[in-house]
Amino acid sequence: MNLPADSPFGPENLPYGVFSPDGGAPRVGVRIGDQVLDLAVALGDEVFAEPALNAFMAQGYDRWVEVRRRIQDLVAGEPPAAALHPVGEVVLHLPFEVADYVDFYASEHHASNVGRLFRPDAEPLLPNWKHLPVGYHGRAGTIYVSGTGVVRPCGQRKGPDGPVFGPSTRLDIEAELGFVVGAGTPANSPISPAEFPRHVFGAVLLNDWSARDIQAWEYVPLGPNLGKSFATSVSPWVVPILALDGARIPLPGQTDPVPLPYLAESRPWGLDIEVTVRWNGQEVARPPFREMYWSPAQMLAHLTVNGASARTGDLYGSGTISGPEPAERGSFLELSWGGRNPLTVNGEPRTFLEDGDEVVFEGTATTASGAKLGFGELRGRVLPARQS
Amino acid sequence: MNLPADSPFGPENLPYGVFSPDGGAPRVGVRIGDQVLDLAVALGDEVFAEPALNAFMAQGYDRWVEVRRRIQDLVAGEPPAAALHPVGEVVLHLPFEVADYVDFYASEHHASNVGRLFRPDAEPLLPNWKHLPVGYHGRAGTIYVSGTGVVRPCGQRKGPDGPVFGPSTRLDIEAELGFVVGAGTPANSPISPAEFPRHVFGAVLLNDWSARDIQAWEYVPLGPNLGKSFATSVSPWVVPILALDGARIPLPGQTDPVPLPYLAESRPWGLDIEVTVRWNGQEVARPPFREMYWSPAQMLAHLTVNGASARTGDLYGSGTISGPEPAERGSFLELSWGGRNPLTVNGEPRTFLEDGDEVVFEGTATTASGAKLGFGELRGRVLPARQS
Repeated sequence: MNLPADSPFGPENLPYGVFSPDGGAPRVGVRIGDQVLDLAVALGDEVFAEPALNAFMAQGYDRWVEVRRRIQDLVAGEPPAAALHPVGEVVLHLPFEVADYVDFYASEHHASNVGRLFRPDAEPLLPNWKHLPVGYHGRAGTIYVSGTGVVRPCGQRKGPDGPVFGPSTRLDIEAELGFVVGAGTPANSPISPAEFPRHVFGAVLLNDWSARDIQAWEYVPLGPNLGKSFATSVSPWVVPILALDGARIPLPGQTDPVPLPYLAESRPWGLDIEVTVRWNGQEVARPPFREMYWSPAQMLAHLTVNGASARTGDLYGSGTISGPEPAERGSFLELSWGGRNPLTVNGEPRTFLEDGDEVVFEGTATTASGAKLGFGELRGRVLPARQS
Repeated sequence: MNLPADSPFGPENLPYGVFSPDGGAPRVGVRIGDQVLDLAVALGDEVFAEPALNAFMAQGYDRWVEVRRRIQDLVAGEPPAAALHPVGEVVLHLPFEVADYVDFYASEHHASNVGRLFRPDAEPLLPNWKHLPVGYHGRAGTIYVSGTGVVRPCGQRKGPDGPVFGPSTRLDIEAELGFVVGAGTPANSPISPAEFPRHVFGAVLLNDWSARDIQAWEYVPLGPNLGKSFATSVSPWVVPILALDGARIPLPGQTDPVPLPYLAESRPWGLDIEVTVRWNGQEVARPPFREMYWSPAQMLAHLTVNGASARTGDLYGSGTISGPEPAERGSFLELSWGGRNPLTVNGEPRTFLEDGDEVVFEGTATTASGAKLGFGELRGRVLPARQS
């Protein structure tokens, strides 16, 4: 195929998604340049005629390697024209059925910033933070694909004379990566960090929409719930871990303390990925995944070390990606420092989201050879609160 | 049918489950006395030949009413012998596919006890507790049916010189009820407390196995995760809300403060249900659901008020049921007061679970007319930690 050498969707990437060709049923495709390759047509395999990646993912690592090689062979030549659709002419769907969803908190800069904002009188990092990847389960049933509108949630927030109920006044984003388990593990068979690429199929951009006022009031002692459970958005393209292997880099920390043995990595799974955050068209941050304290391989090792099984379709988020610089913070909570230092967006002072606002994430991984792998866009617009 | 008048599985109960007759495929049945009625055979409807209740539940409230009436008609006469199996001769399965799982914390006595134990220098109840049913999402993929062995989980716990890794030394139970959503709701269509019986299909006994040492180290600031995610057990029989309607009673509190309007109940959904907890055969507690502060109708109203959808198969737990009396506490953490006051079980002092221990819950609802509705047994045995 004729592809520009610098395409973020070249033969080193090959992200998977689920698309509908004009009037057709949802099916699995791979993005190549500005085209979508219909895999059921191109490879003649019914597993790709499914409306989700789950059946293919469940076939396991060896099959992922084989299919990737076959697609690369196709792309090196000329794929059948009948299997190609311009990406602008198809509808993109949630690419997989979500089993369990867990969200981590793996950026030291983010956790420290939130600690300073939510608990100003205490040490910003809690004592457990550098010993384990802190995380919690979120709502799998409210994960939506890019482009789905986000209705402003209602809920309780603290008022001067007790809680008040109404639309959130501090609606925020969290710029994250999400990791999709392709091949699970039965109960009591933990996945070591070295086994990560045999179990995790790929990565997506993830927006963990957060109502900070609802969250601040509800979150003790059992963690966030309604402040998060109304919506989580993911990008339509799942970038294979087989592609991201080339973007591996060492983690920036973990020398003091050294993690317990079950979290030790023999090959590092830090990733050189940068996300850009645009608010109503204006770039407001560039969160760097390369600065994350915990790797996605460590997150999965932690999730399963207690004997918990993992299933095809399990999704786990990294937690907000924030770097050390102010312009590298992945939430408006941090970018506006709790609303006290408004950002200037299109000439206006802004803190949290207003109705009609649109937020777009883009992500790019850089491989050791300098290739750029695109994640595409994750787009979401805020809709007014439901009238009650 | 010939049933003893005091059977806990008489025509006022009719709980649903999924069973395998000798050598057969899993299918939906109803427990009547000591028999299981095969509904696919008895009613000639393929929705009951499914290996889970989900397809039937998704048909909605009117259908639940109709099928219940047809079963009551059958039981009033003589159901076909080919449709009846002795309950002791069938295998019982997890009765539904779990979509999302949420666990609440709705007993004031439990929350106060845990507050005193985990945060001895602070007020036992946090400021939000009487304003909203505090809850968090748990792991849906590790919900098991009664009888499944529970392998002692490994994990990090606090040690004198930093965290140590190993099998939990404080493995505990939590005696709860679980509520199963039969008919969900789309996004941004909250379920009011009055609509509870049209959406929730039934209730089960639930054991929220908890590793207290892992939980205490990990739970700040995002809540419990690995201390709970290794296993949650549920009873095989789902007692219909249509049956429990007769066991409704007022809630014991909610006068100071009065809940916000979205949590107000016009018909009370307190439930007169008592659970018994046996540890290696000895009864150690009788947790009373009638003492719960928040009702299951309020829990679902809270879960969906922010716009979150609910799905067929969503399960939510009540949180540990503890009453005001010491012998009414639903966890060993409370019964042994943090391990400081051992219980005497079969003549030996005991605090937390040892390998080989078996815990059995039973539940009984009492209706206004005095009928007893059984939940059956929820049984689990502790297996030794995996060798790593």
